[in-house]
Amino acid sequence: MTKETANLKDLMAFRPEIKVLDATIRDGGLVNSFRFSDEFIKDLYETNVAAGVDYMEFGYKASKDMFDESKFGKWKFCCDDDIRAIVGENNTDLKISIMADVGRCDYKNDIIQKKDSPIDMIRVATYINTMPEAIEMIEDANKKGYETTCNIMAISNAQESDVDIALEMLGKSSVNGIYIVDSYGSLYPEQIRRIADKYLNIGEKYGKQIGIHAHNNQQLAFANTIEALSIGVNMLDATMDCMGRGAGNCAMELLLGFLKNPKYQLYPVLKFIEKHMNKLKEDGALWGYNIPYMLTGQLNQHPRDAIAFSEARREDYTELYKLLLDKD
Amino acid sequence: MTKETANLKDLMAFRPEIKVLDATIRDGGLVNSFRFSDEFIKDLYETNVAAGVDYMEFGYKASKDMFDESKFGKWKFCCDDDIRAIVGENNTDLKISIMADVGRCDYKNDIIQKKDSPIDMIRVATYINTMPEAIEMIEDANKKGYETTCNIMAISNAQESDVDIALEMLGKSSVNGIYIVDSYGSLYPEQIRRIADKYLNIGEKYGKQIGIHAHNNQQLAFANTIEALSIGVNMLDATMDCMGRGAGNCAMELLLGFLKNPKYQLYPVLKFIEKHMNKLKEDGALWGYNIPYMLTGQLNQHPRDAIAFSEARREDYTELYKLLLDKD
Repeated sequence: MTKETANLKDLMAFRPEIKVLDATIRDGGLVNSFRFSDEFIKDLYETNVAAGVDYMEFGYKASKDMFDESKFGKWKFCCDDDIRAIVGENNTDLKISIMADVGRCDYKNDIIQKKDSPIDMIRVATYINTMPEAIEMIEDANKKGYETTCNIMAISNAQESDVDIALEMLGKSSVNGIYIVDSYGSLYPEQIRRIADKYLNIGEKYGKQIGIHAHNNQQLAFANTIEALSIGVNMLDATMDCMGRGAGNCAMELLLGFLKNPKYQLYPVLKFIEKHMNKLKEDGALWGYNIPYMLTGQLNQHPRDAIAFSEARREDYTELYKLLLDKD
Repeated sequence: MTKETANLKDLMAFRPEIKVLDATIRDGGLVNSFRFSDEFIKDLYETNVAAGVDYMEFGYKASKDMFDESKFGKWKFCCDDDIRAIVGENNTDLKISIMADVGRCDYKNDIIQKKDSPIDMIRVATYINTMPEAIEMIEDANKKGYETTCNIMAISNAQESDVDIALEMLGKSSVNGIYIVDSYGSLYPEQIRRIADKYLNIGEKYGKQIGIHAHNNQQLAFANTIEALSIGVNMLDATMDCMGRGAGNCAMELLLGFLKNPKYQLYPVLKFIEKHMNKLKEDGALWGYNIPYMLTGQLNQHPRDAIAFSEARREDYTELYKLLLDKD
């Protein structure tokens, strides 16, 4: 579908091209070191199948040389055998993705041939300046038989001309999809519209799908996701109960409630949330909109100071604000 | 400014016509029966003055015949003397508003001549079907010397043709402003755009300002407010830390962080929030986005069932969902 027909399309109808990706384990794992119970992961898989979600991201494919396995749950590493223990042969419509970070993934060895793996899609996450290595990883995954996407992080702090160059490089690569990533939750819908327009132009020129991964620092993750969707972005990231780093992501329950395709079902998601998500919070996982995350979002900064402040349960917001202004 | 010039205007600039109204006491009072300390109200007043907020709504002008004064704090009634005890002669740029509900306000007696009152603006809240009485109240307040607005509630459940008739009636009245009110937090930005367009057309035709009062059931209160603003809506309601009935309102701290007019200052708002808002929550006031409010928003229902569910601290969301579907 072209941008123009997407624009014209009544939102009462639906675009079958829209794909929802559940990133709960991958982005949520950042707030509990990927220590999810097997029951949680199994229930999440079954929930996604029942809810009509299109992709489920199991976590990162992080290098075991670089990261100590004793310090993280297994979904930071996403061994094919661990995935298979949950999904078996995955005889469902749900596809499985993992994220591979540039510089943190031993992709040549750890990503095996697609025909031998339960994984369907490799999402390569990169900053602008490591785009050449990202493209090597994409080409490697493509040759092995996977669908691929590229998630260009922290674009709100990148030069627009650099983003243009990166998009052209990706356009000429074998990548299937390119994600708009609002890493700091700093972008407003009007900016998302402008950025989506740029990405969609590249998408049309080179035949790539465009996606969005939003953060909720300014309570705009859902709004930005449906803004992007309204002009033709088709790959939509969401997480259960917004779980994700800092302020979290676009809530799956909001997104599925909005989408008109009857294959999407809210009820299994509510059931999952009521069984698991409040318990995760009681067990100490911390995420969701608050004033500190709002401030880093407004100031277009990495959330790390807000995370430290929130974990310390501090409420002297004015002190954080002054600290952040000093860094600006 | 016409709609067209508002459309063209770069959002990096600002429209001096934009007015921010702090509705913390009025909408927030619905979750603590208006039992705010005098220190809270005094600090809020000083915060609004320092932050450059344009209007502060002190509460409702409810009839003391209809409502038992022992069951509510004084801001449900907003006696002029109580306001004056806080603001003195109010020699500031901050204007003072109160809300008068159709059918719940003895406006002929309780609203005195403007020249004898600290109040600047009367906001008349009405459902579509009581529009004739709303207009009587507006004309009464106008004759007494007040600015007036009309807040048409629950439009997401009204017939569009009825809204059109109500807007024409208001257009021909003396009212100064007309508010889009998303009472159930059910409207998406795309719908807000369509509704705002309709209201702005009436505003241009009859010379009325248009405002918006949003609810956060779907984490869209801020997004919907800036969506409306982007096409020419000038009167913007917000509350400290989103405080308001159910899921709450558009957060003042998000809105002031977004607006480009340098008269708006975030720092005093942060200072107020850190001193007062978490304490209100600890003392039992309950508001803010959660799954139950999301469900009534998605289903375009009054939040009352979600409020009861939240107050009971229930987490069996699937049961609430089934209950709400039965009512749909």
